[in-house]
Amino acid sequence: MASAADRRFMRLAIALGRRGLGQVWPNPAVGCVIVRDGRILSRGWTGPGGRPHAEAAALARNPDVRGATAYVSLEPCAHHGRTPPCCDALVRAGVARVVTALTDPDPRVSGRGHARLRAAGIEVEEGVEADAAHAANAGFLLRLTQERPFVTLKLALSLDGRIATAGGESRWITGPEARRAVHALRACHDAVLVGGGTARIDDPDLTVRDLGVSHQPVRVVASHSLNLNPDSRLGRSARDLPVWLLHAAGLTPPAQWTATGARLIGCATRGDSLDPAAMMSALAQNGLTRVLCEGGGALAAGLIGAGLVDELVIFAAGKMIGADGRAGLGPLGMARLAEAPQFELMQVQRLGADLCQTWRRR
Amino acid sequence: MASAADRRFMRLAIALGRRGLGQVWPNPAVGCVIVRDGRILSRGWTGPGGRPHAEAAALARNPDVRGATAYVSLEPCAHHGRTPPCCDALVRAGVARVVTALTDPDPRVSGRGHARLRAAGIEVEEGVEADAAHAANAGFLLRLTQERPFVTLKLALSLDGRIATAGGESRWITGPEARRAVHALRACHDAVLVGGGTARIDDPDLTVRDLGVSHQPVRVVASHSLNLNPDSRLGRSARDLPVWLLHAAGLTPPAQWTATGARLIGCATRGDSLDPAAMMSALAQNGLTRVLCEGGGALAAGLIGAGLVDELVIFAAGKMIGADGRAGLGPLGMARLAEAPQFELMQVQRLGADLCQTWRRR
Ligand SMILES: NC(=O)c1ccc[n+]([C@@H]2O[C@H](COP(=O)([O-])OP(=O)(O)OC[C@H]3O[C@@H](n4cnc5c(N)ncnc54)[C@H](OP(=O)(O)O)[C@@H]3O)[C@@H](O)[C@H]2O)c1
Ligand SMILES: NC(=O)c1ccc[n+]([C@@H]2O[C@H](COP(=O)([O-])OP(=O)(O)OC[C@H]3O[C@@H](n4cnc5c(N)ncnc54)[C@H](OP(=O)(O)O)[C@@H]3O)[C@@H](O)[C@H]2O)c1
Repeated sequence: MASAADRRFMRLAIALGRRGLGQVWPNPAVGCVIVRDGRILSRGWTGPGGRPHAEAAALARNPDVRGATAYVSLEPCAHHGRTPPCCDALVRAGVARVVTALTDPDPRVSGRGHARLRAAGIEVEEGVEADAAHAANAGFLLRLTQERPFVTLKLALSLDGRIATAGGESRWITGPEARRAVHALRACHDAVLVGGGTARIDDPDLTVRDLGVSHQPVRVVASHSLNLNPDSRLGRSARDLPVWLLHAAGLTPPAQWTATGARLIGCATRGDSLDPAAMMSALAQNGLTRVLCEGGGALAAGLIGAGLVDELVIFAAGKMIGADGRAGLGPLGMARLAEAPQFELMQVQRLGADLCQTWRRR
Repeated sequence: MASAADRRFMRLAIALGRRGLGQVWPNPAVGCVIVRDGRILSRGWTGPGGRPHAEAAALARNPDVRGATAYVSLEPCAHHGRTPPCCDALVRAGVARVVTALTDPDPRVSGRGHARLRAAGIEVEEGVEADAAHAANAGFLLRLTQERPFVTLKLALSLDGRIATAGGESRWITGPEARRAVHALRACHDAVLVGGGTARIDDPDLTVRDLGVSHQPVRVVASHSLNLNPDSRLGRSARDLPVWLLHAAGLTPPAQWTATGARLIGCATRGDSLDPAAMMSALAQNGLTRVLCEGGGALAAGLIGAGLVDELVIFAAGKMIGADGRAGLGPLGMARLAEAPQFELMQVQRLGADLCQTWRRR
């Protein structure tokens, strides 16, 4: 039975693992804490790009862990990949006990790590703080089990749900604290996604700025027609930081775009839009586990309507724009209120003059 | 100088005064605490309809207050009205000291209460917790100083700012806890106001239910044309509980409506709508100090656009309806984002599955 201390150390391991979110795809963001007699001997988490693994990082920091307990937020790997298996490293280091939160969902390895540790005489306790670990690695798990990434939709809205005036004026609806929080959101996602309309009108660069973060998310534009300017901020910077364009599968991408260095990804269509499920599946096939959609309203409605938004982050500014302003979410074509996609409140936070709300899909 | 204890007792007096909100119009909702040697001897607040006054209520509960300090959230009255002046009652009871938060704003009495107490040898301290007392009696003060009531706008919205689907389905967007909170809001306002559209479509009764409250707010409908059914819930109940109809000043009210017992109030118009400022002025002239507007979107936009909404209470349900649904707030006709009416966050509260936000006009 897991003790209160076991659960506490596991929550710490999960929190350490979260540090890797956005930087480790397609790998999971794992954390590891090694404890002896209630004292933490070492800590580690998955490195950028997925290496080193959390256990290896913790053992490298402090190899002297004989008789200790290792808390790992995911089953340690048992296969030889780019690095030797973590199971073997834990056995060699002489830990007496391993506590894990999740079994590796990959059916080819699932359970083998635990078995290998037990075979070496190590006491293994599974499933500790499984829900928290599941939530932290929802993107990794969704990609393996449903071939789609975890999708966060960010909306910056007036109190009446608008993103711009009738004339299209939309910059600075929310304040500097909220904008900073958007950059922090970008940093913990593998990619930032916008629709073709936003790319055309805003010419965004979609990078993480002013946070002292070196890692940048992949910048993705969904555009059925690829009617996008290659001489835009995204086009000009595509050799330095990745840009992916999702377009209709039948379309031959214009030569100017292929020349920019952007990755061009064909998707199935539905009517004259890209099929939202096909877009997400294409992103998962290309390795993404966590995608932040930043609008606009048409793309957001496509994702919401297809039931593909897992988390909604709403920055509400204390302003009223009125029904002649532009809606933050496009039409959903819902016949009855009972069909309305539902979300559960996770967190509310005052950010300067704005109110940041996090809602999870029910 | 007011001590920390003085401020604490005054906050208590203000809180007691709040109990009268919605029931004492056109009078202020005042609270009184009488304290000797740090012990509370008595407490009182303005009774329904405005009588007894808070000081009289406290003295009636415990007349033995010789040498005590009386904390009153508004300057005690000095004039003979329906009851003898509270100043005289405090003098007769032998209190040694009176602490107040606000001077009576009525220029005919302002300062006279304080002067009369001082003339009787009582020590008087003014302005203690003035801001809190001002906020609690904002409706009473606005009516006297600007001839309009304090206006609260309640909106029950989806996360994207909608109140109904395209087909008009709108009931039960929010849950039972939020609906209960709406009834509590009604109870602390003098009147509930809706637009003609809402009256026609919803046939609401606008009463306070299920709170064990006997007091009911005045029910007000704003309708330029008075194209409203007298055989509606409001029409049929107008003899039992007050119904007021605001209509265009030039209009002769239909005989069926005059027969219902509703009060008919002509207002100046602006275009083919009632002028929002004229509506509020008419309500103030008829004695109202606190009005809760419950929509619909057109009337809400009229009030917001005219800068007449003091407090905004938004019940946000964790649902998405989409831009083809009905907007909670009508068009404001704003040319630039800088003109958007701004609000400051006062309070956020989870209510069942919904999020209740209170914003104050900046
Ligand atoms: N204030 C804010 O926070 C904020 C954030 C983002 C955007 N905005 C504003 O929003 C406006 C743009 O929004 P928008 O709604 O017009 O366009 P959008 O959602 O950015 O883009 C719509 C376009 O996305 C492409 N698309 C592909 N598959 C789709 C699908 N399944 N569903 C929907 N779209 C799909 C299509 O591109 P093609 O036409 O290229 O084929 C479509 O025309 C801009 O004015 C921008 O400033 C504001
Ligand atoms: N879910 C909710 O919380 C909620 C709450 C309230 C309403 N609703 C829904 O909202 C809908 C009605 O809203 P609505 O926007 O159509 O109508 P509304 O705002 O309720 O009423 C508009 C009417 O109010 C009168 N009015 C007078 N002066 C006005 C002014 N200055 N500005 C605006 N209106 C003025 C006019 O009446 P005359 O035409 O009579 O001259 C006008 O047609 C209904 O479907 C109702 O179910 C939902």
